[in-house]
Amino acid sequence: MPEFRKDPVVDRWVILATDRAKRPQQDAREKSDLVMGPCPFCAGNEAMTPPAVLTYDSDGPQSKIATWSVRVVPNKYPAVTDAGGWMEQSNTIYQTAAGLGAHEVVIEAPEHVVSMAMLDENQFERILNAYRDRIMQLQTDSRWRSTLIYKNQGADAGATLEHVHSQLIALPLVPKALQEEVEGAKNYHARTGSCIYCAVVDEEIRAGSRIVAESGRFIVFCPHASRFPYETWILPKQHASRFDSGSAEDYRDLARLLRDTLVRLERSLGNLSLNYLIHSNPSDEIATDYYHWHLEILPKVSKVGGFEWGSGIYINSVAPEHAARHLRDLRL
Amino acid sequence: MPEFRKDPVVDRWVILATDRAKRPQQDAREKSDLVMGPCPFCAGNEAMTPPAVLTYDSDGPQSKIATWSVRVVPNKYPAVTDAGGWMEQSNTIYQTAAGLGAHEVVIEAPEHVVSMAMLDENQFERILNAYRDRIMQLQTDSRWRSTLIYKNQGADAGATLEHVHSQLIALPLVPKALQEEVEGAKNYHARTGSCIYCAVVDEEIRAGSRIVAESGRFIVFCPHASRFPYETWILPKQHASRFDSGSAEDYRDLARLLRDTLVRLERSLGNLSLNYLIHSNPSDEIATDYYHWHLEILPKVSKVGGFEWGSGIYINSVAPEHAARHLRDLRL
Repeated sequence: MPEFRKDPVVDRWVILATDRAKRPQQDAREKSDLVMGPCPFCAGNEAMTPPAVLTYDSDGPQSKIATWSVRVVPNKYPAVTDAGGWMEQSNTIYQTAAGLGAHEVVIEAPEHVVSMAMLDENQFERILNAYRDRIMQLQTDSRWRSTLIYKNQGADAGATLEHVHSQLIALPLVPKALQEEVEGAKNYHARTGSCIYCAVVDEEIRAGSRIVAESGRFIVFCPHASRFPYETWILPKQHASRFDSGSAEDYRDLARLLRDTLVRLERSLGNLSLNYLIHSNPSDEIATDYYHWHLEILPKVSKVGGFEWGSGIYINSVAPEHAARHLRDLRL
Repeated sequence: MPEFRKDPVVDRWVILATDRAKRPQQDAREKSDLVMGPCPFCAGNEAMTPPAVLTYDSDGPQSKIATWSVRVVPNKYPAVTDAGGWMEQSNTIYQTAAGLGAHEVVIEAPEHVVSMAMLDENQFERILNAYRDRIMQLQTDSRWRSTLIYKNQGADAGATLEHVHSQLIALPLVPKALQEEVEGAKNYHARTGSCIYCAVVDEEIRAGSRIVAESGRFIVFCPHASRFPYETWILPKQHASRFDSGSAEDYRDLARLLRDTLVRLERSLGNLSLNYLIHSNPSDEIATDYYHWHLEILPKVSKVGGFEWGSGIYINSVAPEHAARHLRDLRL
């Protein structure tokens, strides 16, 4: 059983999940390559994963390969498991709790594609709809206070399987990184009466220098305080605190922009490892005036070192204005 | 000129240092190997670095190779530079400031050794003394509010040169990661009248299961809420808030234990990439009852993924109790 443990000094939880050491990747540590051999995410190998919790039928060219287009399955080596309730225990000075939560994998194509940028817009739209459907389903369980969608693509980004996929973790707590955003946004709102992310959208459109792309509904930009070279965020222009409250048109437009952005990043940086993640309002509150959901893309072109771990400050050698101009000016 | 930039929502500074893109490593990005060619840190190549700010004479077997045993030089591609005063500017919603600070490199041996574990105890002692000497010197400059010592060993840990070295950055602010520890420790002290790190020392000695090694002056242990497999910390047993306030005997004992720990980690995990860092009380305060300096060793055997970036929660697949037993039981 996984276990939450909290640092006794700072607000930092870890999840101790020793069963994850059994993942095939661990054997490949020395060569730091992704696992080869039969791919559990490929059409035809469905029996290699736990049974699906969501399947979209195939209605496009994929129907020659499989009966499904997107498949969501429980993670076979979960970091958290859905067993019982949240029970914090304080043993001496150390806090622990059962590693409660839901951990799912969104298999993003039936064929063995290794870069999401290779998929077409319709497939991106299905994937985003699958994210929404799973979040909405998980939110009916009142134990989950937050849901994080994230992608690890490439070994440097922490992927253990190369077949395109992303992951979803629902947690009985609001994790620190999200909580800090919610609090920062709340403070700004209390001070000004406005949403700080809406102010960022306005300022980025005004400045223009960090914009990568723009539609009627979203902006794609390299944030002013980018931690990493070519870090790129997508924000809805209209205030919206939750990812899962979008309209069909929102997801269609986001699908187009997200695909366009990943293609630009891949053309610029080569066959790249990246993480992306979706920050959305905690489940406790349906919608708020101050929090604004967004998607953060973190390309892995540089390593995190001792200075970053020791300080929490990130050294970035590429100006976001430079990265944005490069991405924006690419002829596709 | 480097620049500090602050995220508008959360308390997260980045340092934009575009000159660092000129480092030789950047060309090697695709192969992700360390730079080859003439090593600027080797004896005989002293002209390849800026002039030394501290040199220890050679008094041991190294004297055949070089006139020095440890050399500290300004970083040729600094993340922060010592030019002028701290000036925060708020441009619209974004905060920026000049990238002020000192960034030095501690060259840990005149010969081309690539793993610190290969050095002998006397050399470890000289290195720790060099850390202390540079911290004490930099603290005479009232602009620096904190000094961070850190090591990047191996490409996966962010090193760009393989010759054994560590780095020192003095900053005009207290970085978030340190500030959180100081505040956590201050809160615990206000509640209990004791130092939380002293309580950790007591609890670890009582429990025993996470201890790797112990001397009269220090304990070496895998922390209860380890973020990473084989994460290992060294804490002084006697309360001491600053690394640089140790006695000659303290550094000699720490040299022996740090070397022993790195040898154990290398034997256990293979030729490994690792970071270590020293957290010491901010310079503003000479000593406090609540903060307790320590050294954190972070082996790089797993990758950080989207979940960690998005949540601030670390998934660790190796129990610290298992790691500690393994390290402790090794016959050297």
